[in-house]
Amino acid sequence: MADPVVERLCIIGAGHIGSSILRAAREHTIAGHISVADQSADVRARIIELGLADAAHANAADAVAGCDLVVLCVPVGAMGAVTELIAGHLKHGAILSDAGSVKASVAMAMSAYLPQHAHLVPAHPVAGLEHSGPDSGVASLFINRWCILTPAPDADAEAVSTVSDFWRALGANVEIMTPEHHDLVLAITSHVPHLIAYNIVGTASDLEKVTAKEVIKFSAGGFRDFTRIASSDPVMWRDIFLNNKEAVLEMLGRFTEDLSALQKAIRWSDGDALFDLFTRTRAIRRGVIDAGQAGPEEKPETKAVDS
Amino acid sequence: MADPVVERLCIIGAGHIGSSILRAAREHTIAGHISVADQSADVRARIIELGLADAAHANAADAVAGCDLVVLCVPVGAMGAVTELIAGHLKHGAILSDAGSVKASVAMAMSAYLPQHAHLVPAHPVAGLEHSGPDSGVASLFINRWCILTPAPDADAEAVSTVSDFWRALGANVEIMTPEHHDLVLAITSHVPHLIAYNIVGTASDLEKVTAKEVIKFSAGGFRDFTRIASSDPVMWRDIFLNNKEAVLEMLGRFTEDLSALQKAIRWSDGDALFDLFTRTRAIRRGVIDAGQAGPEEKPETKAVDS
Repeated sequence: MADPVVERLCIIGAGHIGSSILRAAREHTIAGHISVADQSADVRARIIELGLADAAHANAADAVAGCDLVVLCVPVGAMGAVTELIAGHLKHGAILSDAGSVKASVAMAMSAYLPQHAHLVPAHPVAGLEHSGPDSGVASLFINRWCILTPAPDADAEAVSTVSDFWRALGANVEIMTPEHHDLVLAITSHVPHLIAYNIVGTASDLEKVTAKEVIKFSAGGFRDFTRIASSDPVMWRDIFLNNKEAVLEMLGRFTEDLSALQKAIRWSDGDALFDLFTRTRAIRRGVIDAGQAGPEEKPETKAVDS
Repeated sequence: MADPVVERLCIIGAGHIGSSILRAAREHTIAGHISVADQSADVRARIIELGLADAAHANAADAVAGCDLVVLCVPVGAMGAVTELIAGHLKHGAILSDAGSVKASVAMAMSAYLPQHAHLVPAHPVAGLEHSGPDSGVASLFINRWCILTPAPDADAEAVSTVSDFWRALGANVEIMTPEHHDLVLAITSHVPHLIAYNIVGTASDLEKVTAKEVIKFSAGGFRDFTRIASSDPVMWRDIFLNNKEAVLEMLGRFTEDLSALQKAIRWSDGDALFDLFTRTRAIRRGVIDAGQAGPEEKPETKAVDS
């Protein structure tokens, strides 16, 4: 077995992502010692019960003491406040990282409180299911997924290398880009898709002529996939939209423009325009499959029929 | 084993839905004899090779001869033309049905050519994957899914009962409603979801600052689910939008209105409005799960990590 990537690891926030990291870190002995901080006593008890950490603290400042790598797995709106809380307690030369889905605003909020002696290496593992809480974590969540690091140009090279090694040990591939580019890429590949999924589920539940019961009953025609995405954690997603406003509004503007053109094509029965788009989009799907990012095959029920 | 539901069954169009019916019909001996019509010689050869039919015809008129139940599994834009082609060759008292995703316009197109002696019972199994062609069929596709029948008020009760029995034998639950209500329900649960999936994949592939390669690489954040939906058959979906124009435009208008409100909430950092919607949408997901319509659980990769 390889040496641990870090001697002492601290995970702040043991929800879906935090507890997935904990599970994977345990499975592959990525750290010699793991401490956890979570505000919820229930979550802390569960983490200890599951054997996912050596120590669980209510106070993040207590959890980071002596740790080499501290990873914040809290909603992006809370990153600054948590950094402020722990700043004075970080070990000399500690590496501070996160798992937030927005990078520019988060890096700014965190660096405002970062002590001179510590190193900031923001990270975003592009993975996750719609579930929440410590029981929803999955050790294999990051396998064959990408983790994007957005270190500042003057970031400590060794710290960047440690965080890269950490994510590779969890099974991810690592890519480095600027926080601004990250936020643009994720706005279109994650944030706007979530927004329109939330939106259509909202629209569907507000109809007068179609009942919510019918919407649910006949959801297998496509809608059910949107309900899955739209069941993701509300605080996490509220914070993402508030903190990646500019890129989301930019991508949303393009989406709406394109949708208006499509609406016009339907109104005027322009079948060729529809066919052209519907053909073009198939190529992207092939790309996703070829890149190994398609996720699991959708399969129908296998329960037998009584004939 | 139960008696066959019909003596002689004819399936016109052996694509994803047609060949799923064939597989299920074979597995559960739903018909004594099955004939198939498909324009493609390759598809016909494949159907015979797979043992899914007793006879495969190039000409739909030949295939329907002597059949008790004829199910059109062709794009909704082709239903009228196929009915015209077979009308003069239908057995006296034959039941004509279909599997189209739009019902009002299809029923109108079909009844225009229907001979007096035959019975029309339009149907729509709310099931299907994004794949196309005879090899993509799945015998279990309809199990625990809903099949909506939209017979006219004066439809032959025995014919409606036979078509209901047919779909129940394939594993589906049967619901009866008017074609107009069907089209409204499906516009929101299937048609608009597909439209916005196609649309966002189109938007994503047209960006200057984010490459298609990046969109594909980082698609695990939500986008990949949309690429799956947007890889459905282009002809089928073009025809759906052209034939359910009114209901789709109505639902699309509501979707856009709601999206504008959401866009405004983001622009003005109205976190409460976002949080409220994101919380409300979770209830619909629970309904979908409780109704057994959630489909397979999304699961991460299980390939081991080299640690």
